[in-house]
Amino acid sequence: MIKRTLATTFFYLASLSILFAQNKPKYIFYMIGDGMGLNQVNSTEVYLADLENRIGLKPLVFSLFPVATFASTYSLSNGITDSAAGGTALAVGSKTKNGVIGMDSTQTKPLKSIAYAAKEKGLKVGITTSVSIDHATPASFYAHQTSRNKYYEIATDIAKSNFDFFGGSGFLNHNTTASKETATPIFTLFEKSGYTLAFGKSDYNRLKTKADKIILMNNKDTDPESLKFAIDQKDGDLNLKEITEVAIESLTKNNDKGFFLMVEGGKIDWSSHSNDAATTLHEVVDFNNSVQAAYDFYLKHPEETLIIITADHETGGMTLGNGSSNLNFKALVNQKVSQGELSKIITKIRVEQPKTTWEQIKSVLAENLGLWTKIKVNERQEKSMFQAYENSFIKHVNATEKSLYANDEKLVAEAVKTLNEVANISWASGNHSAGYVPVYAIGAGSELFTHKMENTDIPKKIAQAAELSL
Amino acid sequence: MIKRTLATTFFYLASLSILFAQNKPKYIFYMIGDGMGLNQVNSTEVYLADLENRIGLKPLVFSLFPVATFASTYSLSNGITDSAAGGTALAVGSKTKNGVIGMDSTQTKPLKSIAYAAKEKGLKVGITTSVSIDHATPASFYAHQTSRNKYYEIATDIAKSNFDFFGGSGFLNHNTTASKETATPIFTLFEKSGYTLAFGKSDYNRLKTKADKIILMNNKDTDPESLKFAIDQKDGDLNLKEITEVAIESLTKNNDKGFFLMVEGGKIDWSSHSNDAATTLHEVVDFNNSVQAAYDFYLKHPEETLIIITADHETGGMTLGNGSSNLNFKALVNQKVSQGELSKIITKIRVEQPKTTWEQIKSVLAENLGLWTKIKVNERQEKSMFQAYENSFIKHVNATEKSLYANDEKLVAEAVKTLNEVANISWASGNHSAGYVPVYAIGAGSELFTHKMENTDIPKKIAQAAELSL
Repeated sequence: MIKRTLATTFFYLASLSILFAQNKPKYIFYMIGDGMGLNQVNSTEVYLADLENRIGLKPLVFSLFPVATFASTYSLSNGITDSAAGGTALAVGSKTKNGVIGMDSTQTKPLKSIAYAAKEKGLKVGITTSVSIDHATPASFYAHQTSRNKYYEIATDIAKSNFDFFGGSGFLNHNTTASKETATPIFTLFEKSGYTLAFGKSDYNRLKTKADKIILMNNKDTDPESLKFAIDQKDGDLNLKEITEVAIESLTKNNDKGFFLMVEGGKIDWSSHSNDAATTLHEVVDFNNSVQAAYDFYLKHPEETLIIITADHETGGMTLGNGSSNLNFKALVNQKVSQGELSKIITKIRVEQPKTTWEQIKSVLAENLGLWTKIKVNERQEKSMFQAYENSFIKHVNATEKSLYANDEKLVAEAVKTLNEVANISWASGNHSAGYVPVYAIGAGSELFTHKMENTDIPKKIAQAAELSL
Repeated sequence: MIKRTLATTFFYLASLSILFAQNKPKYIFYMIGDGMGLNQVNSTEVYLADLENRIGLKPLVFSLFPVATFASTYSLSNGITDSAAGGTALAVGSKTKNGVIGMDSTQTKPLKSIAYAAKEKGLKVGITTSVSIDHATPASFYAHQTSRNKYYEIATDIAKSNFDFFGGSGFLNHNTTASKETATPIFTLFEKSGYTLAFGKSDYNRLKTKADKIILMNNKDTDPESLKFAIDQKDGDLNLKEITEVAIESLTKNNDKGFFLMVEGGKIDWSSHSNDAATTLHEVVDFNNSVQAAYDFYLKHPEETLIIITADHETGGMTLGNGSSNLNFKALVNQKVSQGELSKIITKIRVEQPKTTWEQIKSVLAENLGLWTKIKVNERQEKSMFQAYENSFIKHVNATEKSLYANDEKLVAEAVKTLNEVANISWASGNHSAGYVPVYAIGAGSELFTHKMENTDIPKKIAQAAELSL
């Protein structure tokens, strides 16, 4: 029955696609799951089906799009791209070398992004993310800098962009240049360029009617680095779907010329760097919720909307299976917080209650990951965790393990590793891989996305569909 | 320049696809890379580019098809399918449980395959593989048996099939039933049903003019289990491309009603089970050579041909990357033989020259894998190999390591593991994974394959395109 409904949906969507093949998109959603390889999506679909006690996949909103293919991601300098070269490829349609934002590989020539091409054509432009607005992926769409680490310089490019909406957690560097000199604060530059700064959703609601160009950030008392992981969010915390909805509202206000909106689910990558599967799957669901917002808009303007979903690269070499023919993703439901949050809990205990026993630590791990209480732990697994406990609590050595975006307690990393092992998920490394990334498309112009492509083909095809000059 | 050519090719192919969207395929190629996940294809493309001293991908014939998407593979019993349930899904369009061939999951109801549907419609039918003809994937297209291990019973279904061409290495069980009773030899049954048996290509050439229905096997003095791995093949050894060409020749002889040809690249799976990357990449290239034969046919009949390329599942959780941002696949060019062949060499030495020193063994590994001579080996890697040597040559314990299709010397497995590590390839396990598999399509009906699908959708869509009753 479900199958038949899906088949009908497919047929309907496919027909729409053919029907609207000749249309030019007026509203363009370009949605990027950072680190969202095919297996991150696949795992989420398996997890959601597993929660319904069935073998198989529960489709995400974009899994049912009438067009799905895959793209390669290598950069000019490396077989495995970073988010700067990956984002730049998706933004400007040219490969560059790792680390570079919106410039060619000689780092001398700025390259025009699809967002600027849209702006030139009179479309409003929005750039949004669940991490800081100056991070590599969003930056690739508005900045031209020799290094992704030049956060101040990247932010100053916002002031020059004239784009209409920016949204994300905040900014990493307010007034210090790459050469460590103090400069005009970016917020001053933004306001000089006509941007209204909104801190949190209620601030946005207060300011929106009078504002022309807006930069939406998280509340002032939150971490500017990123929104909380979806698994850690509480009611009232700003999330990516809200940012997406606000962006749509803002870009459609007094505007009959259409818009280009880039939305990045930025932390799929972060949790994948930590090989934290449960947190990753929640991030993909969170990203999918933002796609739902775009899809709801599409349903109101099916003939004039194009939605593209893709990723800049895969992170972690995530694999569905580690030897058995069964998957046990339901085990992941026992994880209540991200590895990072659990790490903070353990750090606090280690610092404030250094005499905490292994049995007491076990109960913390049980409460947050279900180990021992909900999940059988074998001798080898317990030994690994105990050794990490012994090192950090008793011998006071090797307490933490650094990955790209985290410096977590090794004990917690071991515990999460055990949970992943029980769930039958493998990870190849804490770095990116060169696996293809998925590309999903629906709406006007989606018929251009049916074949295997380079990541650089994606913005070119968007430009082709919307008659933009990239 | 190359880019522009590819873009032009794409455009040409895409135009063809649209142009011929209304056509019904008369010639259907259904080509299955057993175990060929997205990363097996991706790795091969990276390897071929790496041989040209460039970062990037060198496309395979099917990488350039105008339609590419991906499919899920889970079975009714397991999140991770075996080749029986995977093959059955691709053949009959219904999921079943692991182990079952061409029947439903209650193991009581035979299910009609797309090959039988083609035969009913008057098309000639060919079933070919690089492994034994009674193996799970080919069997799924002609047999109905409760277990993939019932090799005798599976083979007897050939006699009932009335299909026109079978090709592969041979058969695993000639006259012993699943209940261990001696029965009529399968070759007798085949000949009674009007099949001409050809052993090797020259035998085929001698017999082909007079033959009606043909079963092509490898020369009588070869291993019936499978053709040699491509990396081990010498001039004159039967290969999958030749089988494909012979099948096309045979199926087009005195036939104006078209054909359905299934071609399996069966050993991508085998080398992936052994986590033998170089051998796997050579197998994908070998499979691609067979696709070239189909594509050459397509170019002569573009309006009436449909080629579908896919896989039954991914094997090994192969990943492009193990921590570095570089790939070094060129290291794999130093591997001269498959892990299995090298294992035979080492076994022979171990049995016949048990006093062989570590230095002598190192020179054998150097010769066949390039270790030490072409590839730097670190202390940890050498220690792992030396330990395996010490165990097997000196302590006479744990000499071999069993995987699904091999029982290789542990020393050799360690050496191949080292080479993979140097190449920056990871493997998650020696079993299948639940990763999506790629689906590529070209020709009449290819426009049906643009979205993410279930493996069972593939034969259904072929049936839809060709108006077959599945």
